[in-house]
Amino acid sequence: MKKFTKWQGCGNDFVLFDCLQDDIEDYASVARKVCDRHYGVGADGILVVLPSAQADFRMRIFNTDGSEAEMCGNGIRCFARYLYDFGLTKETRFTVETGAGILVPEIVLEGGKVKGVKVDMGEPHLLGEEIPVVGFDGSKVIDKSMSVDGQEYHFTAVSMGNPHCVIFVDDAEKFPIYELGHKFEEHALFPKKTNTEFVEVKDRQHVRMRVWERGAAVTLACGTGSCATVVAGILNGKLDRDAATEVELDGGKLSIHWANDNHVFMTGPAELVFSGELADCEACVC
Amino acid sequence: MKKFTKWQGCGNDFVLFDCLQDDIEDYASVARKVCDRHYGVGADGILVVLPSAQADFRMRIFNTDGSEAEMCGNGIRCFARYLYDFGLTKETRFTVETGAGILVPEIVLEGGKVKGVKVDMGEPHLLGEEIPVVGFDGSKVIDKSMSVDGQEYHFTAVSMGNPHCVIFVDDAEKFPIYELGHKFEEHALFPKKTNTEFVEVKDRQHVRMRVWERGAAVTLACGTGSCATVVAGILNGKLDRDAATEVELDGGKLSIHWANDNHVFMTGPAELVFSGELADCEACVC
Repeated sequence: MKKFTKWQGCGNDFVLFDCLQDDIEDYASVARKVCDRHYGVGADGILVVLPSAQADFRMRIFNTDGSEAEMCGNGIRCFARYLYDFGLTKETRFTVETGAGILVPEIVLEGGKVKGVKVDMGEPHLLGEEIPVVGFDGSKVIDKSMSVDGQEYHFTAVSMGNPHCVIFVDDAEKFPIYELGHKFEEHALFPKKTNTEFVEVKDRQHVRMRVWERGAAVTLACGTGSCATVVAGILNGKLDRDAATEVELDGGKLSIHWANDNHVFMTGPAELVFSGELADCEACVC
Repeated sequence: MKKFTKWQGCGNDFVLFDCLQDDIEDYASVARKVCDRHYGVGADGILVVLPSAQADFRMRIFNTDGSEAEMCGNGIRCFARYLYDFGLTKETRFTVETGAGILVPEIVLEGGKVKGVKVDMGEPHLLGEEIPVVGFDGSKVIDKSMSVDGQEYHFTAVSMGNPHCVIFVDDAEKFPIYELGHKFEEHALFPKKTNTEFVEVKDRQHVRMRVWERGAAVTLACGTGSCATVVAGILNGKLDRDAATEVELDGGKLSIHWANDNHVFMTGPAELVFSGELADCEACVC
């Protein structure tokens, strides 16, 4: 019987296997089986805790289809909280080897209790060819015009390792995201397609954001999308840079800070939902 | 920390709480919280094991919205297998008090191992007013004609405690169930609406069935729908009554036998997926 813990961060949920001692034979096969919401445990992905030669720990993430993801903002918060809550480290800052390099999550304490986890999401890339956006080589893409379904929209494009198209709207709840989201994703301006954020600015440190994710449609939360949103808000003069901005997503809240060193820091929740033991684990070595 | 086990039968999945010793305070609230597939354990419902004054055990089932269901064929198989596998009974037949009366599930063994669970699903009701179907008072509703979306269909109506409209089709896989299912459900012939089964007869003891459930749309499996299908198949001379018929559903296989005592017996799988402990259980008394 293989033990696991089940976590969620902003509604993005993961089954975590601690493989520091007992490894799993076939991660992809376990991910496909375990993530199934009727025949398995049910999750958006599995997190695997491994030893690392270069960092304190190594994280691998596998999607429901068995493919490996380089990194996931909601996932690494859950990963980091597991290590701290279950006593695998006493440090509140430690290094984690991921497919996107070595990251340094930080456990945020308040009155001795864990309040959330802070993650350095790296630097935004703003040039047209970096994102990529057609026709903007060598220049930033801030408050530009695009046409979707015969309607004119202003957009700002930001890459956080993946492309984002940020649209500021008057009313995020009323925006017809299910009807129009895929038209932004597949717009000719974005040769690698794009994630799109529909953002209502509540005040200079508070936005409401709904997201259409590339290849996944509407999701409860998107960490890189929240970062891109705050960067775009600052570039457009709608948000302040000197303090963090609260991003209100369908699945919860994230706090995003674009610091002076150009790195974007994301702080958010990571919650243990339950721990369990699989009845049947043909695919694992234990 | 409240312990639970997670089960599935034909893809219909349940979180089971054994409340023989420690009860839960508010079943409806626990069901709503625990059944959530991102923030909870994730399930179609919760099963509660309770003592009974009239039977060996009492089963209560709560849906994801907190409402109580009277009975559930896939649920009672999981319930029965829990009692046997976890040693709460040594009998392979025992009585269970449900919202639909006292039922007698039977553990089916093969070579000493549990192969499935057999449940007496009661007697079919065939008269128009029992189902109900408009315009058929006092008579059976076998191979009658109805019009849906300008197309003519032959249907047979059966009640298994809930109404079913069984349609025999040439190719169950190709039938446009997502487009037309709700038009059968809301057809004027059925004043209390209806479940509808689209059934392809493979041979005289084997059918492929897809189901549109009243109030739930397309589901992976429907126990009462499988029973109604086999009764309708026998009434139409397409299936044999002297042996069980295998019903192949989207979520798995059920074996249905309309016995000489007029009761319909359903045999099918019930599988433990994992056991677990909730991290947080404000709603329970333990």
